[in-house]
Amino acid sequence: MSIRIAVLGAGIMGTDHARIIARDLPGAVLQLVCDASPDRARGVANAFGAVDAITDPLAAIARPDVDAVLIASPDETHAPLALAAIAAGKPALCEKPLAPSTADCLKVIESETKNGRRFLQLGFMRRFDPSYGEMKSALTGRLIGKAVMMHNIHRNVEAPANFTGQMAITNSAPHEFDAARFVLDTDYTAISVFQPENIETTRIGAPVFMVLETASGPLVNIEINNNATYGYDVRSELVGETGAVQLAAPTPARFDLALQSFQRYPADWRPRFAEAYRLQNRAWLDAIRTAMPSPIAATAWDGYCAARIAEAGVLSLAEKRRVTLPRLETPSFYR
Amino acid sequence: MSIRIAVLGAGIMGTDHARIIARDLPGAVLQLVCDASPDRARGVANAFGAVDAITDPLAAIARPDVDAVLIASPDETHAPLALAAIAAGKPALCEKPLAPSTADCLKVIESETKNGRRFLQLGFMRRFDPSYGEMKSALTGRLIGKAVMMHNIHRNVEAPANFTGQMAITNSAPHEFDAARFVLDTDYTAISVFQPENIETTRIGAPVFMVLETASGPLVNIEINNNATYGYDVRSELVGETGAVQLAAPTPARFDLALQSFQRYPADWRPRFAEAYRLQNRAWLDAIRTAMPSPIAATAWDGYCAARIAEAGVLSLAEKRRVTLPRLETPSFYR
Amino acid sequence: MSIRIAVLGAGIMGTDHARIIARDLPGAVLQLVCDASPDRARGVANAFGAVDAITDPLAAIARPDVDAVLIASPDETHAPLALAAIAAGKPALCEKPLAPSTADCLKVIESETKNGRRFLQLGFMRRFDPSYGEMKSALTGRLIGKAVMMHNIHRNVEAPANFTGQMAITNSAPHEFDAARFVLDTDYTAISVFQPENIETTRIGAPVFMVLETASGPLVNIEINNNATYGYDVRSELVGETGAVQLAAPTPARFDLALQSFQRYPADWRPRFAEAYRLQNRAWLDAIRTAMPSPIAATAWDGYCAARIAEAGVLSLAEKRRVTLPRLETPSFYR
Amino acid sequence: MSIRIAVLGAGIMGTDHARIIARDLPGAVLQLVCDASPDRARGVANAFGAVDAITDPLAAIARPDVDAVLIASPDETHAPLALAAIAAGKPALCEKPLAPSTADCLKVIESETKNGRRFLQLGFMRRFDPSYGEMKSALTGRLIGKAVMMHNIHRNVEAPANFTGQMAITNSAPHEFDAARFVLDTDYTAISVFQPENIETTRIGAPVFMVLETASGPLVNIEINNNATYGYDVRSELVGETGAVQLAAPTPARFDLALQSFQRYPADWRPRFAEAYRLQNRAWLDAIRTAMPSPIAATAWDGYCAARIAEAGVLSLAEKRRVTLPRLETPSFYR
Repeated sequence: MSIRIAVLGAGIMGTDHARIIARDLPGAVLQLVCDASPDRARGVANAFGAVDAITDPLAAIARPDVDAVLIASPDETHAPLALAAIAAGKPALCEKPLAPSTADCLKVIESETKNGRRFLQLGFMRRFDPSYGEMKSALTGRLIGKAVMMHNIHRNVEAPANFTGQMAITNSAPHEFDAARFVLDTDYTAISVFQPENIETTRIGAPVFMVLETASGPLVNIEINNNATYGYDVRSELVGETGAVQLAAPTPARFDLALQSFQRYPADWRPRFAEAYRLQNRAWLDAIRTAMPSPIAATAWDGYCAARIAEAGVLSLAEKRRVTLPRLETPSFYR
Repeated sequence: MSIRIAVLGAGIMGTDHARIIARDLPGAVLQLVCDASPDRARGVANAFGAVDAITDPLAAIARPDVDAVLIASPDETHAPLALAAIAAGKPALCEKPLAPSTADCLKVIESETKNGRRFLQLGFMRRFDPSYGEMKSALTGRLIGKAVMMHNIHRNVEAPANFTGQMAITNSAPHEFDAARFVLDTDYTAISVFQPENIETTRIGAPVFMVLETASGPLVNIEINNNATYGYDVRSELVGETGAVQLAAPTPARFDLALQSFQRYPADWRPRFAEAYRLQNRAWLDAIRTAMPSPIAATAWDGYCAARIAEAGVLSLAEKRRVTLPRLETPSFYR
Repeated sequence: MSIRIAVLGAGIMGTDHARIIARDLPGAVLQLVCDASPDRARGVANAFGAVDAITDPLAAIARPDVDAVLIASPDETHAPLALAAIAAGKPALCEKPLAPSTADCLKVIESETKNGRRFLQLGFMRRFDPSYGEMKSALTGRLIGKAVMMHNIHRNVEAPANFTGQMAITNSAPHEFDAARFVLDTDYTAISVFQPENIETTRIGAPVFMVLETASGPLVNIEINNNATYGYDVRSELVGETGAVQLAAPTPARFDLALQSFQRYPADWRPRFAEAYRLQNRAWLDAIRTAMPSPIAATAWDGYCAARIAEAGVLSLAEKRRVTLPRLETPSFYR
Repeated sequence: MSIRIAVLGAGIMGTDHARIIARDLPGAVLQLVCDASPDRARGVANAFGAVDAITDPLAAIARPDVDAVLIASPDETHAPLALAAIAAGKPALCEKPLAPSTADCLKVIESETKNGRRFLQLGFMRRFDPSYGEMKSALTGRLIGKAVMMHNIHRNVEAPANFTGQMAITNSAPHEFDAARFVLDTDYTAISVFQPENIETTRIGAPVFMVLETASGPLVNIEINNNATYGYDVRSELVGETGAVQLAAPTPARFDLALQSFQRYPADWRPRFAEAYRLQNRAWLDAIRTAMPSPIAATAWDGYCAARIAEAGVLSLAEKRRVTLPRLETPSFYR
């Protein structure tokens, strides 16, 4: 029996998800594409053979010919739509963030917990990236001893105009927050945010550098640099007691031209994480089919944890000081 | 409308194809698994949810609930089953080789030509590998000028016992023959085969080194080394007048341990070409749906060309001399 | 006219310097080797053809057949011997640190300033490493825009027993402090030191992670990890507004063995910085000959600056807080 | 006692050797620079502090204040000057080739043999390159089993106008011929030369591809591509029964700019082999001092062997056939 999916939001991410559902996920049917712009909804629906296109996401969630929803609408709608999906008893894969504030994240968690079923999956797709998988295996397989430090770098070609350091923390860093937390299997206990000071923010945007302390001990640091100019580049290195492991980005070819030997960077994240999205969405489909959440997929709780450290980071940036967080207990519902 | 596929042969390749069809190809249904061993057929059918398992490939081809066949049975059965599929008017994706001899290849070509439809696709999956694609684009996009030379290396961990130089040419080299011919868009005009002489063939198998001349001018050379021990490693470099391009194998991580910085080799070809198989099979499905052969997929004619240069290579090895081939005209049916 | 050099200290570094002087520096004569252990002094003197071996460093400095001294004796003797060389009017190349405390550094600076000649060169040899040179050129040549951040990593195979975080800051980090300050051409204004907390210090030693703020704006961070186990590994990446540049360590070969493609790490710093030491010592010799200090060599002032930020780092580690430093004016004598 | 050296020839190579002698070789004195052009001789002499500059190489060899000569004059003068040095009883380091013809090489060998002392060293400097050293060690240390094949690539940015395939074999290939022979410790028994045919030789020059068979068994192949455009690039891979080893060229930095991650190629051979030249010349000096030839340095016999295979290669190119060579016995004088 095929799972009929409504994609909510037909922007860049929604379009990608529609394509993955239509072309890469046997057993899934792209049933609906929903977008506030009827043209956009129709365009994506036609491009990938969806059965229908509509503009009202609550109606989409309610439709009897929809078994599950993929929430890729604007950030502030994530939590309300997630709540609606929970209320309708329909599984949802929700793009990050779960909600811009921890308060809203907690509402979703409360609702899902009451509902008694964990069918909300959060779109921290890096958990499915094979290179992060290798990193986590190096740790769990005791290849490199206990974790000591983890260095993380996130660079974009160009940030939107008026991008701020705060936005770097709340919009870009959550993928890093979650990936490091996932690999290290721990929670954050403190954050210290730094910014270079010579850089005119109108030109270079607002790179930030963060040092995070964790409950289990290892240090995590993160560079967020949304105006790196040279390419989309995500790096991570996990340093253990006896060795280290780094992500290797996929690159199909090496060129020799004009006194240079080079490999190419992608201009955005999609080529880098294409396989991660595909595997994430397949794991979601398997979870729906089997009614068993993927053991590695991010939950609403993980979304809350990312929002929580981001809020602490914003405070650290504003007050130029180390901000500590109380220790958290993961609710048994999410363990 | 889904395409119902019978996989003929449930060995390593057949199992992989069954998995790809079942898990990665929306619009395809794994209808039948067929193998001379009923247990093996049943095992693979169960593993990937096929509708049925049988032992007679001709019956499989004939079944009305089968729309297309994937031929992954032993080499010598490829041509007979391809002929049966053509006779039944059913599209087939046939693992390489099309046939062990050029004579048998030509029979298939004759039959297909008479039939008037090109629905036989040959499993030279490297044509779909993104890295070969980059290489071909570097040439067609005039990034590196005209082609001058192409260096190709094929290394396996270990060959079966009693593997000979002749088998290296007829079993392993065809992928290289086809990939270079595909990238350069030319035909071979001569081949010279060399073998190292110090190596006891019982221990190291029979590495061969070949130099191929082409109709359009560039030289191609190929190392086939099926007992390379250290890993599965396929390399290729295309050298043009103004630059060069090399394949880069996918590798998810880099490790630092024990005074070494290393990346891992796979033990066989499947991780290296997983994406190529997926894209090849999807292209085949698209070709069936649209009744338009993929412009890059290998045809029966390409299979014949690979067999033809392999036969010349066997002669060159036996007689220790350069063997020339008459110029070929690609039939208009295959252009 | 050859310059006759006395090497003070015949430990690892002194032996290396004796070898460089004897084998790589035309125009230099290894005149004396001096060590508290007469056997060690004699052994090194014999190995590299020194004219004499003695045990008293002050006598060595005073000898009329000694034109210049290379101070490679224990850390606490550096400042007294540098003062003696200044008093004797003899140029000295002094291994780092100039002195363990800023107070002692300032005494040397005062003496040298009074003396009126800058013939004390400090052994921050990385300034002569071609890879740091490329990095600095990328900045001064405006290849990568203004500096934004600099990431630095220093890893050793194994620290001596009872190595502490404080020692990581005072013994290992000064090379990083100076290299980043040299590349960025700025001074430090604040330091925040972090340590992972799960690691038993008896086993793993005491890795530290530092974030440094600079007068000109860019952030600098440094990992010091003296028990990294896997190899001697120094990395640095300079991130600019429009691009980035990383050091590449010299490595003569790549190996393929046992399912791995690997390059080797050295077990200590000497192979990594052999060329830097050679070029540093040659620059020192040129400076003596021409009576013109090398424009890139480290001065006593640079030694003071390294000691100053190390002291602030020790305070930051002890008090677990960001420590700020008042802005410094480089004395005109050292500009 | 310093060795007083006359550099014969003040072109690119002679200038480099003068610089190495003056700046990198303690114990050597750059006594004379000799060139047919008095201005050039004087210019190089002044640049590196030579005692004198003259125009007559035979006079230079004869001078009593000259202990040894470095022959870097035009190719056709190498043998006559080597003979003069032998007659004068003065050690010589002679740039390759020993002579353009095997006949002239044999005259030098005869003279040296009669003389009874092996003080002629041939400038196959790659034997001193650390990366070739690693490769040879991998073989002698049994890291990769017995040698099976060796792939060699030599690429230049641009050949002189009218450069021919024959010149590629006689001028460029000898370094490759010698390096492979040195690493494998064997002699060549056959050579087959191929050329791509589409390339207009006026534009691309004349790349050649050669397959060499050896007395001990392994195959050697060589691409000589003097118009590769993109950079100076020498590669070599030695494939053994159980592993492989490749040269790694020195590169000080990696850059990230404009959607590319790149390392730079040098425009010519000097940066690539700077260390090899330095170590070669030092070994020569040590050999003079100790009257013991370096065990790895190339002899006149090695120069003859390179000329011999080059002559066979020229024949193979002309007649488009495999050319065999009779087995050689290395004279005991050169063992």
